[in-house]
Amino acid sequence: MAFTARFQDSLTRTALRAYLAEFISTFLYVFAVIGSTMSSRKMKGEVAAEAASLVGAAIANSFALSTVVFMAWDVSGGHVNPAVTFARVVGGHMTLSTAFFYWIAQMIASVIACLLLKITFVGMHVPTYTIAPQMTGFGASIVEGVLTFALVYTVYAARDPRRSGQLGSTGALSIGLIAGANVLAAGPFSGGSMNPACAFGSATIAGTFKNQAVYWVGPLIGAAVAALIYDIAGYPSPNTDSFVEVDRV
Amino acid sequence: MAFTARFQDSLTRTALRAYLAEFISTFLYVFAVIGSTMSSRKMKGEVAAEAASLVGAAIANSFALSTVVFMAWDVSGGHVNPAVTFARVVGGHMTLSTAFFYWIAQMIASVIACLLLKITFVGMHVPTYTIAPQMTGFGASIVEGVLTFALVYTVYAARDPRRSGQLGSTGALSIGLIAGANVLAAGPFSGGSMNPACAFGSATIAGTFKNQAVYWVGPLIGAAVAALIYDIAGYPSPNTDSFVEVDRV
Amino acid sequence: MAFTARFQDSLTRTALRAYLAEFISTFLYVFAVIGSTMSSRKMKGEVAAEAASLVGAAIANSFALSTVVFMAWDVSGGHVNPAVTFARVVGGHMTLSTAFFYWIAQMIASVIACLLLKITFVGMHVPTYTIAPQMTGFGASIVEGVLTFALVYTVYAARDPRRSGQLGSTGALSIGLIAGANVLAAGPFSGGSMNPACAFGSATIAGTFKNQAVYWVGPLIGAAVAALIYDIAGYPSPNTDSFVEVDRV
Amino acid sequence: MAFTARFQDSLTRTALRAYLAEFISTFLYVFAVIGSTMSSRKMKGEVAAEAASLVGAAIANSFALSTVVFMAWDVSGGHVNPAVTFARVVGGHMTLSTAFFYWIAQMIASVIACLLLKITFVGMHVPTYTIAPQMTGFGASIVEGVLTFALVYTVYAARDPRRSGQLGSTGALSIGLIAGANVLAAGPFSGGSMNPACAFGSATIAGTFKNQAVYWVGPLIGAAVAALIYDIAGYPSPNTDSFVEVDRV
Repeated sequence: MAFTARFQDSLTRTALRAYLAEFISTFLYVFAVIGSTMSSRKMKGEVAAEAASLVGAAIANSFALSTVVFMAWDVSGGHVNPAVTFARVVGGHMTLSTAFFYWIAQMIASVIACLLLKITFVGMHVPTYTIAPQMTGFGASIVEGVLTFALVYTVYAARDPRRSGQLGSTGALSIGLIAGANVLAAGPFSGGSMNPACAFGSATIAGTFKNQAVYWVGPLIGAAVAALIYDIAGYPSPNTDSFVEVDRV
Repeated sequence: MAFTARFQDSLTRTALRAYLAEFISTFLYVFAVIGSTMSSRKMKGEVAAEAASLVGAAIANSFALSTVVFMAWDVSGGHVNPAVTFARVVGGHMTLSTAFFYWIAQMIASVIACLLLKITFVGMHVPTYTIAPQMTGFGASIVEGVLTFALVYTVYAARDPRRSGQLGSTGALSIGLIAGANVLAAGPFSGGSMNPACAFGSATIAGTFKNQAVYWVGPLIGAAVAALIYDIAGYPSPNTDSFVEVDRV
Repeated sequence: MAFTARFQDSLTRTALRAYLAEFISTFLYVFAVIGSTMSSRKMKGEVAAEAASLVGAAIANSFALSTVVFMAWDVSGGHVNPAVTFARVVGGHMTLSTAFFYWIAQMIASVIACLLLKITFVGMHVPTYTIAPQMTGFGASIVEGVLTFALVYTVYAARDPRRSGQLGSTGALSIGLIAGANVLAAGPFSGGSMNPACAFGSATIAGTFKNQAVYWVGPLIGAAVAALIYDIAGYPSPNTDSFVEVDRV
Repeated sequence: MAFTARFQDSLTRTALRAYLAEFISTFLYVFAVIGSTMSSRKMKGEVAAEAASLVGAAIANSFALSTVVFMAWDVSGGHVNPAVTFARVVGGHMTLSTAFFYWIAQMIASVIACLLLKITFVGMHVPTYTIAPQMTGFGASIVEGVLTFALVYTVYAARDPRRSGQLGSTGALSIGLIAGANVLAAGPFSGGSMNPACAFGSATIAGTFKNQAVYWVGPLIGAAVAALIYDIAGYPSPNTDSFVEVDRV
């Protein structure tokens, strides 16, 4: 059957294992990110300390993302983010049909993580990403696009097999670090999501899809641009005309 | 004698060295984790700043765990946590009799660390993990189980010899990072222990075993589930039918 | 033509790719650093929490710098800072004409990043680096010089091909870590810029060049001194007369 | 001459380069650590936020130490701490006469760093390490000893050539991480110095040597104990009777 044939490559054992890895990593990431926001809100009811909460949210995002990418690195590539998966399709690293299953796994994982947080963290609302009152949705999309560009460009650099083996070992770590820096840079303005699955899961459980488009359009465009630019600028061509900076002894 | 024979493998010089390594690493970890909570409580008497204290607790946990796992990596495997040891037994990486001595070393180390904190940090109570009033013990067990699942899954990924050599060097670091993210995610709700030895030591010195079951049942189940799922999903099978994501140049 | 000949080496495809890499990395770095200051100022309007804001600024700087250096490492060397580029010229690692284009890329990237922040973060002023009232411009220059010395010395150590391969993988990370420590050390006194491009971009968009000289003179001198001292003290000579500390087993 | 002969090995070019490396790294470390305390004190005059300040001090210590150890790793071993140097003598890794010059370099560097801070950060006192009122000097010595034990044990693990090459790359990082965790654990109680040079430099410039003995006796004993125990427990013997934990596939 045509339909079966088309998805044949996307349903091998290796592929199924990759979807499960995406599910597990995305679940744990969303649990940490949304959980940390709920934790800081619980305390803010007692003492207002937004700056410290932002630092906490950034560190939770950074540390969790580094680790869940590390977990899934050799299995699924460690996307845990529909925008990253989209960028890998744009860059020709995976097929659209496989990406489709990645997206399903990521979305379901995010919804379940938020649901579990709602059930266990009794009496707390699941927070959604919000945009500062003075910002427009268009401006927020641009900011989320820039943040996601940074994230995806780092993913591309980290997974580039031409990179010197030395730096390669800090690839998963770097992906988490830039996410943390981005939350600190833009959290109070555009929300600092960079991840449509995370935005979708929390919105689904919170029951409000206000501004949801911002967290899809911005990240997906930013991710695609990163994939395209990385092919041009990301690495010197093999038969390079000598490097401009010399590691002279 | 049957008894001697059974424990024979668990009493070699290498094994004894491993128990000592577990003792040292667990002692230092508990000293840092419980100490950091006492430090922030000392300050909170002066100025309420819970959000910053949570960040401090998360960083102390993260940095200390990364380092003590690093210390003991080649000697005992760097468990410093009865739930991790349990998961390694479940996954078939060590015998139950050896695990028994690991547990003894971890528990004694934790109690002594808390005792030393009580004696030297004069006039301070040793804090125990607490559950937010609105939460049930069952809910807290689930949360601690999820957190420990994340921790143990990271341990499995970090110690998997099939992993690409590159990422391997950040294994101990990743174990610490996920612990820090987890504290930020759930600290104010379930306590964010993930470590029965740490919970037992502080409870023993504080003299109250309230909710102690939560910090054993949740982590042990979460750890076992992580061990079992990692065998299924953690790594592509050797004769793999091509990876779904391509590191195309 | 003489002019063309002179810049010939600086306009190869590899060189152009390097300038683009510097542009991208500097843009993302400045976006994160200046953005994080604006984020914390937005919150400070609500609750004063300077200490937490400083921690946030330091982490944003650290995490962003580590990652953007990682991104551009094999392409341009990952300077993202005119002072670093200057130091590499002083140390004989690149030509002045190539450095000239690096500087242009870095400056334009910084201005555009600050402009984008001003446009999207509606109603916020782009902050400039300021010096504590009690300090002199001369004192601030010295402090910025010391901070930049530390940064550039780390860059030299990280890019030294003689270093043991082991440590090499954490080179980009270390560059970010020292930047974060420096912001914590001197942020409230001299501003903790260490980066003339970052200072120039924010000043251009903010429309005030007060104290701009401090953020050029200090860092450039500190960077040059680091380059010169590294050649003397940075690494044992090849035919070394035995190391003073022994990694004895 | 006997005197010359004795110090002959300690005055080779390689040795002199090592002393200079210790000087530079210790200078930059003390500048960051003491500077970060002064920065947070400057802000505390405005808003009390001790918890955030402690986090800042811990991160500054951690990030700076990781980097300066990284800088000097292949040159002097990256001690930047008289207690570490002492431990290396106790463990037989260097001669006492060479250690003597390390100590001189570390002490002078610390004093100059504190002097520069006093001169440039106009109107601020250089802070000294203090002990919580309720603690005894003996208790504080024990705490500082435990903290330094953790630090030196990490140094030994990080510099052990038998360690698996993989983890080796995060050695310098781990040394910084445990220092940061220790500051969070005990900063408000014993000060969290772990470094006699740092304590000496700040005391010299502040003009008060109150409790100075605590910051020498505790760390030196803790360091020596770590060196001795590492030889027993730090690593499995070469002809090991099989590892207790198996990295089974």
